[in-house]
Amino acid sequence: MRTRAAVALEAGKPLEIMEVELEGPRKGEVLVEIKATGICHTDEFTRSGDDPEGLFPSILGHEGAGVVLEVGEGVTTLKPGDHVIPLYTPECRECPSCRSGKTNLCTAIRNTQGQGLMPDGTTRFKMLDGTPIYHYMGCSTFANHTVMPEIALAKVREDAPFEKICYIGCGVTTGIGAVINTAGVEIGSTAAVFGLGGIGLNVIQGLRMAGADMIIGVDLNDDKEEMARKFGMTHFVNPSKIEGSVVQEIVNLTKKGDDVIGGVDYSFDATGNVKVMRDALECSHRGWGVSVIIGVAPAGAEISTRPFQLVTGRVWKGTAFGGAKGRTDVPKFVDWYMDGKIEIDPMITHELTLDEINEGFELMHAGKSIRAVVKF
Amino acid sequence: MRTRAAVALEAGKPLEIMEVELEGPRKGEVLVEIKATGICHTDEFTRSGDDPEGLFPSILGHEGAGVVLEVGEGVTTLKPGDHVIPLYTPECRECPSCRSGKTNLCTAIRNTQGQGLMPDGTTRFKMLDGTPIYHYMGCSTFANHTVMPEIALAKVREDAPFEKICYIGCGVTTGIGAVINTAGVEIGSTAAVFGLGGIGLNVIQGLRMAGADMIIGVDLNDDKEEMARKFGMTHFVNPSKIEGSVVQEIVNLTKKGDDVIGGVDYSFDATGNVKVMRDALECSHRGWGVSVIIGVAPAGAEISTRPFQLVTGRVWKGTAFGGAKGRTDVPKFVDWYMDGKIEIDPMITHELTLDEINEGFELMHAGKSIRAVVKF
Repeated sequence: MRTRAAVALEAGKPLEIMEVELEGPRKGEVLVEIKATGICHTDEFTRSGDDPEGLFPSILGHEGAGVVLEVGEGVTTLKPGDHVIPLYTPECRECPSCRSGKTNLCTAIRNTQGQGLMPDGTTRFKMLDGTPIYHYMGCSTFANHTVMPEIALAKVREDAPFEKICYIGCGVTTGIGAVINTAGVEIGSTAAVFGLGGIGLNVIQGLRMAGADMIIGVDLNDDKEEMARKFGMTHFVNPSKIEGSVVQEIVNLTKKGDDVIGGVDYSFDATGNVKVMRDALECSHRGWGVSVIIGVAPAGAEISTRPFQLVTGRVWKGTAFGGAKGRTDVPKFVDWYMDGKIEIDPMITHELTLDEINEGFELMHAGKSIRAVVKF
Repeated sequence: MRTRAAVALEAGKPLEIMEVELEGPRKGEVLVEIKATGICHTDEFTRSGDDPEGLFPSILGHEGAGVVLEVGEGVTTLKPGDHVIPLYTPECRECPSCRSGKTNLCTAIRNTQGQGLMPDGTTRFKMLDGTPIYHYMGCSTFANHTVMPEIALAKVREDAPFEKICYIGCGVTTGIGAVINTAGVEIGSTAAVFGLGGIGLNVIQGLRMAGADMIIGVDLNDDKEEMARKFGMTHFVNPSKIEGSVVQEIVNLTKKGDDVIGGVDYSFDATGNVKVMRDALECSHRGWGVSVIIGVAPAGAEISTRPFQLVTGRVWKGTAFGGAKGRTDVPKFVDWYMDGKIEIDPMITHELTLDEINEGFELMHAGKSIRAVVKF
């Protein structure tokens, strides 16, 4: 079949909207009509050429929602008409990682996915001249139709609006999951969130759900304060407007009663800046502070600290897709949205058509959007 | 009263054995007759002058065992005749850290202890000319008698031999505690231990107790292999004798069945070398590997890695005194030794008199001792 897609032909160039050829689903695969897709910083990381593993030409996009049109041989858990959210972190329930119960990082199709291929080592997309087009993060949601493995699709309820729940395919789950799956924040905790973009806001609403008492947001841009407070932030720190270090500021904010040491119980980096990751670790509490890295750092960048920080009880962790097991957890997140437990609408600041997708990247660069969504 | 002690008069000089003045216990304090003390690398770190926080003159030593001779006002949990192990990490059960239940890093007397003083801000030791002598790690076990806070003494059973259980005051608890308290190793786990000195051997026997299936020891010295195998090591890697990196070697050793990723479930650094700490992290399993830093790094040294290592599920932690709450846990460790659950005797390779204490440091430097113990 033919479908319309935004194709990344070369690193650093705008996407080109064009017709492409899409082959039908093979064994274990599913054809999905994408109804909406978010535009995420990770797409931009690859589009710009900063991603050393970026492949071209490819169809980017990994934050989508849509409807099953056709299933390949052997597919048993999905049928035409099912509403689905694509998962860049699949959940096969069979591999050593899934069986471990300790991680969401399913390895069933990891190698081929990293090479921009379907599990059988080929692509489903082609240019009209026959040139293969790489898949991206196993999803390629910047196309009106895509083919995905069954294990990489979460079936969700049918009354949920695509243009909102597509954000659960990455940002919402990453931020909230970091709090509830990776950090395991308890009621009454104190926390700091570095970076108040889309991920940071979702960390904040995760902390509010988890019952945190004190939610400190950190950002260099004062304009981020208002929205972050709406999602549950209780204190705001702009590192450029304080005397002394942001670590000392947070330590001082959290000293309470006979606790003269200070520091947050949990901290989260949602910036991708390795210096900020260090601050996030070091402002966490001696003895039990847990710091979670969410942001994606530039290629080759390294985090560092004195080992004393860990020996005195801080824990350094990271999270991918918020530690969520996609087929199991994503439908729950959709329920939470529909039940009003989590908010998404205020974060979807722009709706675009596929033809306008490059404007979405411009809005992101200009800091004007939290999330721009393309509606097909 | 007067007592005999090995005094560190200046950084980098041998200890001097001399008579010193010891004042009796004040409120909340206890006079202890030290019966035996181990000589630990941490003592040497300070004696040598490498410790930027080292104070002189001081009486070093923090790995002791002895008998209560006299208690000060208000002491309720100890009485003359009780057998005790000094705790450089006290357990007050009252401070925010103790109350948290999340850490053993009691803060009740942290500031004064770091300054070489008793909690009231003074010292009990003096030279015969009246010059105050600093306490060390709140213990100063290189003296035949010492004064310590009640909260820094673990009461232990009276049939346990001082010259063996003194090692529980630091090395044994640090190594075994890192496994059972900090890492929380489960039955059937795989693990790697970097550095097969005294701490490494205790990590290994901790892993054996915890039921680990595969215990990989790593050391540059082949002579360490035999003893480590006696404590439970199942595989030995000498990084100078393999092709490729130690990380790759361990990853290959641990691939099993359909797990083609490899990596240990738990890794431990017992070297204090920040490059080794990185290897320990990076040889742990994607998705769930936990790496624990035990070793004390040189002043100013920093650990580093790519954040990707954490984002893909590895956890970086540290441990101090094996995460053990001293008054609660140390008596249990003594029981385990007396019940034959843990071994100490083969690790006490040398017994010295106080006058021979400098030989103990020489044996350590020459790599001839696992632990040298001074018996009073």
